[in-house]
Amino acid sequence: MNGKFCKDPKLVTADDFYFSGLDKARTTESSPVGSNVTTVNVNQIPGLNTLGISLVRIDYGINGQNPPHTHPRATEILLVQEGTLFVGFFSSFPENRLFNKTLNKGDVFVFPEGLIHFQVNIGKQPAVAFASLSSQNPGVIIIGNTLFGSKPPIDPNVLAKAFQLDPKVIIQLQKKFG
Amino acid sequence: MNGKFCKDPKLVTADDFYFSGLDKARTTESSPVGSNVTTVNVNQIPGLNTLGISLVRIDYGINGQNPPHTHPRATEILLVQEGTLFVGFFSSFPENRLFNKTLNKGDVFVFPEGLIHFQVNIGKQPAVAFASLSSQNPGVIIIGNTLFGSKPPIDPNVLAKAFQLDPKVIIQLQKKFG
Amino acid sequence: MNGKFCKDPKLVTADDFYFSGLDKARTTESSPVGSNVTTVNVNQIPGLNTLGISLVRIDYGINGQNPPHTHPRATEILLVQEGTLFVGFFSSFPENRLFNKTLNKGDVFVFPEGLIHFQVNIGKQPAVAFASLSSQNPGVIIIGNTLFGSKPPIDPNVLAKAFQLDPKVIIQLQKKFG
Amino acid sequence: MNGKFCKDPKLVTADDFYFSGLDKARTTESSPVGSNVTTVNVNQIPGLNTLGISLVRIDYGINGQNPPHTHPRATEILLVQEGTLFVGFFSSFPENRLFNKTLNKGDVFVFPEGLIHFQVNIGKQPAVAFASLSSQNPGVIIIGNTLFGSKPPIDPNVLAKAFQLDPKVIIQLQKKFG
Amino acid sequence: MNGKFCKDPKLVTADDFYFSGLDKARTTESSPVGSNVTTVNVNQIPGLNTLGISLVRIDYGINGQNPPHTHPRATEILLVQEGTLFVGFFSSFPENRLFNKTLNKGDVFVFPEGLIHFQVNIGKQPAVAFASLSSQNPGVIIIGNTLFGSKPPIDPNVLAKAFQLDPKVIIQLQKKFG
Amino acid sequence: MNGKFCKDPKLVTADDFYFSGLDKARTTESSPVGSNVTTVNVNQIPGLNTLGISLVRIDYGINGQNPPHTHPRATEILLVQEGTLFVGFFSSFPENRLFNKTLNKGDVFVFPEGLIHFQVNIGKQPAVAFASLSSQNPGVIIIGNTLFGSKPPIDPNVLAKAFQLDPKVIIQLQKKFG
Repeated sequence: MNGKFCKDPKLVTADDFYFSGLDKARTTESSPVGSNVTTVNVNQIPGLNTLGISLVRIDYGINGQNPPHTHPRATEILLVQEGTLFVGFFSSFPENRLFNKTLNKGDVFVFPEGLIHFQVNIGKQPAVAFASLSSQNPGVIIIGNTLFGSKPPIDPNVLAKAFQLDPKVIIQLQKKFG
Repeated sequence: MNGKFCKDPKLVTADDFYFSGLDKARTTESSPVGSNVTTVNVNQIPGLNTLGISLVRIDYGINGQNPPHTHPRATEILLVQEGTLFVGFFSSFPENRLFNKTLNKGDVFVFPEGLIHFQVNIGKQPAVAFASLSSQNPGVIIIGNTLFGSKPPIDPNVLAKAFQLDPKVIIQLQKKFG
Repeated sequence: MNGKFCKDPKLVTADDFYFSGLDKARTTESSPVGSNVTTVNVNQIPGLNTLGISLVRIDYGINGQNPPHTHPRATEILLVQEGTLFVGFFSSFPENRLFNKTLNKGDVFVFPEGLIHFQVNIGKQPAVAFASLSSQNPGVIIIGNTLFGSKPPIDPNVLAKAFQLDPKVIIQLQKKFG
Repeated sequence: MNGKFCKDPKLVTADDFYFSGLDKARTTESSPVGSNVTTVNVNQIPGLNTLGISLVRIDYGINGQNPPHTHPRATEILLVQEGTLFVGFFSSFPENRLFNKTLNKGDVFVFPEGLIHFQVNIGKQPAVAFASLSSQNPGVIIIGNTLFGSKPPIDPNVLAKAFQLDPKVIIQLQKKFG
Repeated sequence: MNGKFCKDPKLVTADDFYFSGLDKARTTESSPVGSNVTTVNVNQIPGLNTLGISLVRIDYGINGQNPPHTHPRATEILLVQEGTLFVGFFSSFPENRLFNKTLNKGDVFVFPEGLIHFQVNIGKQPAVAFASLSSQNPGVIIIGNTLFGSKPPIDPNVLAKAFQLDPKVIIQLQKKFG
Repeated sequence: MNGKFCKDPKLVTADDFYFSGLDKARTTESSPVGSNVTTVNVNQIPGLNTLGISLVRIDYGINGQNPPHTHPRATEILLVQEGTLFVGFFSSFPENRLFNKTLNKGDVFVFPEGLIHFQVNIGKQPAVAFASLSSQNPGVIIIGNTLFGSKPPIDPNVLAKAFQLDPKVIIQLQKKFG
């Protein structure tokens, strides 16, 4: 799922290594979790093919968050541009340790490959961060959207048992995420 | 987190490549989700170091499941030994497609690296599967235990917003998984 | 020799990650060495492409063996399902150490990447094992078939000198394997 | 030269994944080329070990430049934070094509692994960029400092022939860079 | 088995990247197959650690050969320095194709990773070749020595069945190689 | 830029792994630096595709040199066939250490991946070396040709500042290399 073809080297130009507009704030209003992620990977910059790196801009509204998610093929290094973020990642089973930190402008934090992580805007203003990922096509799995918003939806009884919740709660979640 | 030292080659014996007892059924009674995973990786077989493969046995009680989880460093190939399993994985955002299948004895299914996947015993008897993973130290992140049972626990308001649930529900979940 | 194209992600279905029938015993009667290997790799499961793992079922007749061979691109982890196997691998030159073990049902053994290894049924009944390999296309080089059954055959004098055997013995071997 | 030991997982804390102060402007006055690179790699963030990514902040004075250099183990993706940069990289022999672009705030450019590249501040104000590299320890080879400022210095006649310059010019260069 | 520690970079000298004497002919008289391989890998050049390449010189006596062997972790590219060699490799099961060629001075041939290959001096004089391998520690498995000269020896009945030979022939082989 | 398609395995022949004529001396007269590099990589030997190794022959005229260059994707191991070479490489910033050595016939030296290196014929006769590289497509960046002979040329003021030279000197260099 990660493979793309390489362009004929003779036809490659500087524009194949270029992207613009990452300084522009993105609205977070249409997001139920109050954030907006702008991706700059091999789909936007063809020249990144096989080169093992990509970039995102993340805008956080007031009280917004980038909810728990993983990148199946990448480590992430995040730099806070504006605002105050509460961030963290969880180590793997059975320790399940939460490594968290409050970050301010100019702070950097690392989310190791494949681990669940999140960022929450805990400041009084919108926040902005830039994050780099160690793959040209890192992928993202947002836990909530994946479990409760999949197409087709999963049998609610499976998730009810997994999360020890009433199936009715799962059905409600599926409506919200569906 | 993945590194181990290599033994002096002169001191290595056949026992460094050996493990026994994987034919024995494991109880699933003490598990809230009705399953029991026996791991055979570099922690059990030192000779697997750097070799990129490992094995697990999974016992499923009646109505038991191996709940949604990921392996941050491995693809998994599963073989059903006994019983009937409903299995699946979710592709990454934004498609969030559920790829699922009902498996019987002798059936094989693949869970690609880093993706959330699960198996549910939908037969009338206990079930058993063997699964191989493409790392000597694949790691496992069980979504429920990680999000709701982390040490220390995460602020319930963060998860309440992420999952669009009442914070009280999150606090209940944290009690169950804590 | 290892490359395959990836399917359009939109056309991928659960069946691309699925294989069935690995519970069925295979006849070993037509095999001069009394074994039968059923492969489940990227040729049988397209979804394994690039994922670095595959599976085989091995049936051993009474007195049967899986003769000395290597996998040029994979480590193997073997699980005995039924019967008693004498197994081993050889370390590289100049030590040429034999690491061997007698395995029973539920035992596991590892054959490191590229090393010559074998399994022999030393029980009184047919035996069965499952083995996983750390490549979606591991390849197999059976020493006897390769050296004595190649197309075209190699000059018998070359092998006569290599193995310090009379060329007539090599010619006999080439007749048997050809 | 790239290897570091891993910390005991039990002693790892969130601070092993954290760095601060990347929002602070660095002086470029002491630099003969008018730039200042602040590195955030495995030497500053121990948790980056083996994870394949790192970060730098680059300050450019007026008329300053980050002179031609390579990273022997990494691709770079650069984001302009403030100012206007003329940037480029050269493809390999025999094409030696220059791929260049003028970048403004919010623009992104990629410098593929191992290729010589540079950035020049062509605006009227200081400029700032952040760049990510696809290695936790990418290394940097600044062409001028390496060729003319090595310890010990190289015989000037070697470089005179390589660059078709008078040996006296090389000796002058060695004095400046030495 | 492949890991070595890196030297403190400050203590590294040019001698850590240096080896001498590869121009000297080696005697092939004490070899039953009439060849002598001089290895230049990480054991001789510490600076090769992690760098993925090594070198050998091969001397062939009249009628000598470098008998069938594999390198479990490397592709080989061979250059004939003097003499005439008949060389070949075998593709994997079930094709078992022999790719062979007669090489003279200045000819180059490639033996892909993990495949069984050989070189035979078919000229009237001693021959010499240099070969590079795509690992700093490629390993070598000489088929004859491994199967018939292992320590401890393998049960001759196993090999008798594998090669469809009388166990007495195997015992003779084990005496020759033991 | 590194990808090639694999041939249909059935159509592959021994010639896809073969190259000849590397024993022939190449003229160095048309080279301004007095050397001539004959490459034997995936462009000459299709069978090298994905196999991670290649070869070059280097002829050095009297007073000739292989000028400072890097291979962005490969380590190099060099063997002197005839003559006396002064060789070296530079470690990365800020140490910029020169590791150099005088080599005679039969001597071997390693140039680690991505580092600038060179060889100078300091003997009284032409010299010849063979070098292997740890990539089937290693690429080469000759510092002088790249900086001063790029297409299009770079603004001389950029290089003037980078090398602390008068722009007129840069313009002269661009004429020589252009």
